Amino acid sequence: MNRESAKPAREDAPAHPGASSGRPSLDLSGVDLVPRAVIDAVRPEIDGGRHPIKRVVGQEVRVSARIYADGHDHLAAVLRYRCAADTAWREVRMASLEHDRFEAAFRVERLGDYAYTIEAWVDAFASWRDGLERKVNAGLDVRSELLEGAVLVRAAAERAATTDASWLRARAELLASNQSQERRVETALSIEISECMDRHPDRSRSAHLDRVLHVQVERERARTGAWYEFFPRSCADEPGRHGTFRDCERRLAYVASMGFDVVYLPPIHPIGVTHRKGAGNKSTAQPGDPGSVWAIGSAEGGHKAVHPALGSLADFEHLVESARELGLEIALDLAFQCSPDHPYVEKHPTWFRRRPDGTVHHAENPPKKYEDIYPFDFESEHWRELWMELKSVVSFWIDHGVRIFRVDNPHTKPFAFWEWLIREVRETRPDVVFLSEAFARPAVMQLLAKIGFSQSYSYFTWRNTKEEITQYFTELSSYPNREYLRPNLFANTPDILHEYLQTGKRAAFQTRLVLAATLSGSYGIYGPPFELCIADAVPGSEEYRGSEKYQLVHWDLEREGHIRETVARINEIRRENPAITRGRAPEFYPIDDDELLAYGRTTQDGRETLVVVVNLDPHYTHSGWLDLPLEKLGIDSRQPFQVEDLLGGARYLWHGSRNYVSLDPASIPAHIFRLRRRVRTERDFDYYL
Amino acid sequence: MNRESAKPAREDAPAHPGASSGRPSLDLSGVDLVPRAVIDAVRPEIDGGRHPIKRVVGQEVRVSARIYADGHDHLAAVLRYRCAADTAWREVRMASLEHDRFEAAFRVERLGDYAYTIEAWVDAFASWRDGLERKVNAGLDVRSELLEGAVLVRAAAERAATTDASWLRARAELLASNQSQERRVETALSIEISECMDRHPDRSRSAHLDRVLHVQVERERARTGAWYEFFPRSCADEPGRHGTFRDCERRLAYVASMGFDVVYLPPIHPIGVTHRKGAGNKSTAQPGDPGSVWAIGSAEGGHKAVHPALGSLADFEHLVESARELGLEIALDLAFQCSPDHPYVEKHPTWFRRRPDGTVHHAENPPKKYEDIYPFDFESEHWRELWMELKSVVSFWIDHGVRIFRVDNPHTKPFAFWEWLIREVRETRPDVVFLSEAFARPAVMQLLAKIGFSQSYSYFTWRNTKEEITQYFTELSSYPNREYLRPNLFANTPDILHEYLQTGKRAAFQTRLVLAATLSGSYGIYGPPFELCIADAVPGSEEYRGSEKYQLVHWDLEREGHIRETVARINEIRRENPAITRGRAPEFYPIDDDELLAYGRTTQDGRETLVVVVNLDPHYTHSGWLDLPLEKLGIDSRQPFQVEDLLGGARYLWHGSRNYVSLDPASIPAHIFRLRRRVRTERDFDYYL
Repeated sequence: MNRESAKPAREDAPAHPGASSGRPSLDLSGVDLVPRAVIDAVRPEIDGGRHPIKRVVGQEVRVSARIYADGHDHLAAVLRYRCAADTAWREVRMASLEHDRFEAAFRVERLGDYAYTIEAWVDAFASWRDGLERKVNAGLDVRSELLEGAVLVRAAAERAATTDASWLRARAELLASNQSQERRVETALSIEISECMDRHPDRSRSAHLDRVLHVQVERERARTGAWYEFFPRSCADEPGRHGTFRDCERRLAYVASMGFDVVYLPPIHPIGVTHRKGAGNKSTAQPGDPGSVWAIGSAEGGHKAVHPALGSLADFEHLVESARELGLEIALDLAFQCSPDHPYVEKHPTWFRRRPDGTVHHAENPPKKYEDIYPFDFESEHWRELWMELKSVVSFWIDHGVRIFRVDNPHTKPFAFWEWLIREVRETRPDVVFLSEAFARPAVMQLLAKIGFSQSYSYFTWRNTKEEITQYFTELSSYPNREYLRPNLFANTPDILHEYLQTGKRAAFQTRLVLAATLSGSYGIYGPPFELCIADAVPGSEEYRGSEKYQLVHWDLEREGHIRETVARINEIRRENPAITRGRAPEFYPIDDDELLAYGRTTQDGRETLVVVVNLDPHYTHSGWLDLPLEKLGIDSRQPFQVEDLLGGARYLWHGSRNYVSLDPASIPAHIFRLRRRVRTERDFDYYL
Repeated sequence: MNRESAKPAREDAPAHPGASSGRPSLDLSGVDLVPRAVIDAVRPEIDGGRHPIKRVVGQEVRVSARIYADGHDHLAAVLRYRCAADTAWREVRMASLEHDRFEAAFRVERLGDYAYTIEAWVDAFASWRDGLERKVNAGLDVRSELLEGAVLVRAAAERAATTDASWLRARAELLASNQSQERRVETALSIEISECMDRHPDRSRSAHLDRVLHVQVERERARTGAWYEFFPRSCADEPGRHGTFRDCERRLAYVASMGFDVVYLPPIHPIGVTHRKGAGNKSTAQPGDPGSVWAIGSAEGGHKAVHPALGSLADFEHLVESARELGLEIALDLAFQCSPDHPYVEKHPTWFRRRPDGTVHHAENPPKKYEDIYPFDFESEHWRELWMELKSVVSFWIDHGVRIFRVDNPHTKPFAFWEWLIREVRETRPDVVFLSEAFARPAVMQLLAKIGFSQSYSYFTWRNTKEEITQYFTELSSYPNREYLRPNLFANTPDILHEYLQTGKRAAFQTRLVLAATLSGSYGIYGPPFELCIADAVPGSEEYRGSEKYQLVHWDLEREGHIRETVARINEIRRENPAITRGRAPEFYPIDDDELLAYGRTTQDGRETLVVVVNLDPHYTHSGWLDLPLEKLGIDSRQPFQVEDLLGGARYLWHGSRNYVSLDPASIPAHIFRLRRRVRTERDFDYYL
């Protein structure tokens, strides 16, 4: 697990000269000649290859490395890759760039694991050809050189099993012949011979990168999606009644009308009664209090059961199917913990830690105690049995149609467990998506992403100022973070009603919605409180007052001031503009007001850019001059260009790099501009994109 | 060699869950539980541990890593290290810093290889103690917790073979006893029990960094030294006579008077006659032309012989001894190449590459040809024999008293050869210093430094503007470069008389001297031309006119305008101020003139700083305001402070961070200021450092 193992590090003594560990040996007789080519500074590569990079099907993996040797010889290299199903490596020739860098790319076309590595060699023919050319240009006699070339070409002919063999043999004869030097040089320097020689290189002294690097290839939903979280039990039409999966089905149409992709349901399992939490997180429940949905398990079943008040497993399957018909996918919560009444507690007492006095360790964050929840002991003497059972929980829900899991607090369970579990699941179901709900230190969040989670909750809710947002998203999109960590930006959660939303009212919700939806491929809201702009918190906290976590809540979906239409429009803009969901990382632009934030989202091919401008101050209008990098955006700074606000609908004619923007929070506190630029085509004809 | 091997990469399948390669296995029965602690982001570490970092005896190795686990437990870690002679690892506890970083340091005290690695574990006692304290502070009942603590303490007693065992056992009994909770809590939270528990941690589930990292420990001269290069054959008192080692001995006093540490002699071996170069690098020699000293080998011998005109091997040994008495050390040139007359050519024909027509490949950089030099074929079928012979050359000169080698063009020989050779030599003679003379691309220069060269020639001669110098030295001192690449700043060489020196006259020589001598621990000049300010070049080139490389030159050491005294003073300043030779990397300060460059050199302990200000324009006086970071320098900005110009001798009273500086190239174009600052001691008493 990671670079650690239970055994101390060993010092190996590789059998080649210059090995960096082990005792040197004066006797060279047992060692091989080391290839002269060197491959280093490989990109992308996570922790020396310990972890895979991530891609979705259809994406490109562009690999570069520094490849060089002593002396002045030319080098050649191939990027080798294969997917899990391949028996052989495929190869693509690497192009030589500046500063000894070589680069090549391949496209991933199947779900699962891809592997890649690099092979490089000294290209004797290209080196010889280059020297010959320079000598010829300097008017030198190259008789000896031509004989050398003939040897190289003849050797290539030996390697070529194809029709190239005889062609090359003839060229070798010509080079060594008595024909005029001019004629022979012409042959030696021809493109035809170079291309043919390139097909039959001498790779007998190739250097091989000493490791294989991996790509975790997932489906598009692992990267892109708009998520909507709601509590099924609060879906009943009438106040006070426990919602059912049938009620949820009606709610789905509402969610679909806003254009979401994923519906995430908090746990749907039976809830324990022992130490059940009361409404408002009171330590004792009143009769009728339904308890926290995360206190999983009762006499009615555990992680493989549904809460009887919600309906049956068949009802759940029906819900999944109904969602699918609406273009929605159901994501379930994986909360690996038990209420004291969970069947596991009695059946598998060793899966839980006990104190010397026999009491079971409940969850705690001293001095806070969560007596309604028992964590598993992942290091128990029966850990293998426990891990297998938890895997069977995932398999169970997969069998009932679920392909997305939001994992509750993964950072409180061993990393090795998740790495094992996710790999096991993906082995047969590479289309399963895992979202890590870890609000932990950066090292922990990063490692969870590295070991397999498709996407990750982020610090987004706590990044509200221009500086905070700019810094955080610059960090997230820096190398190597961008290669493995896909943030899913939840604007709120049942646990987090940020002060910004508490005090900023409707404008704050709109601002955070626009930011969440346009800064990353995946984002989410916890509704209906979000679109209803519910800002009522327990004072001094980020907790919702009367939180759904502990009680049924009846939501008035038509509440005045709701922003359902804005949500729908934003999701529509996302669908229509891959620049946002699949584009390059946000690039922040200067704008001369501390409450105005501006950034561009550009498609991977660089052809389309959306410019988002947000007023972060929910109370006052702010205006400022936005500074766009016109040249980089492909806009002629001498010509006016049109921008269209996809959110507000207005069109403006802008001129030059600096343009005036004003945003009033009382209206809508953001612009999402599409740039309509003139593009000079190869035929030198102007048209609008 | 490097991460490459002649064999393709393999995919290993480590026997633990979550392993990132190999087929996953549903059956956990054969696998071990992975330690929960994670160790990553280790610093310093070169290319994942493939290459050693460098230190000199007495220096510190400060190691840090990110160490963390799932959940909220406390972690503990040790840095483990040992020198080659140690049979067991030594350990030092790592201190916990912010952001999951742990850090510890050790000092290297012996020449040769040191190894270090890291072990980390979840600290059950510290975790328990922390939870207990928080619960006690919250007024909770901790009876169960105290029983848990007793178990932990009892287990530590079992591990303790010392007198601690009975002490701990008694504490465990107390914790589990009927004594008052207050009394038992007091014991549990006492410093004594923490310290004792820290001596007997449970490391049975430790995580071990999966690799051992290395330190190449050398003597001080590998890092610090003033080098003086001269041609022995030009040392005769009378013009026209071939200098001898005896003449060199007289020259040594002159060199010593300028305060140098190392005298580097270009090759001293017999010189070939075939294709011998004439004076001025003419392609044919006239009778009496001595040839290039790099065209090594004649009927009189090869790399293990001395040129008869210089004297005998005994004379050479006498020279080495005389140097030592003057505090100087002789460095020899290792130029692994042969003249066509070298005895190797006849005796070992397979060591050289031949063309199909039987001619031997001479050195070339097409279209340039160096027909007086045959390179070795390091990949010849008898490469082992060749490599061993070349090693014996180094051993030969070591046996004759040489401990420093300047290696000629190492980048045209395989990296694996150097890595092997340097390791072989250091195995028995870890005091031998190797200087790499590679003016190659960054990747190549960096790799040569990584594989063992003690120090490296640099691009310094070609970095002359403020921007170039600032950028280059910022790059050299950045991580990880600073951990393995020690630049030796030659201000000129027999190959490089830069245009700046050609046109800038005396002031240019002074400026480049100050820069070379104060920007790095090691620097050098090629004399006497340097201190005599010889600026006469072959037009349009960096070659000296009438270069010593191809002819005898008689130098007038008293030439008007020489800067011998400045050289001597600079070397004296270096000797007296470890801030320059062993201090932190140069820190560049703002100064508002593009031709003025200012930087500080501060001792490792931060107590002393020299501020160097240089006028880069050799023609005109420049003045400007220098901006010093007073707070960082420990200077009270409200008080005046004295600066003493170690070069000019003047003292100034400065006030505040911005002070005026003016430098006239007609006088001396640099200041080297020592800051005399008031330091507030613990006794709150002001004094001057």
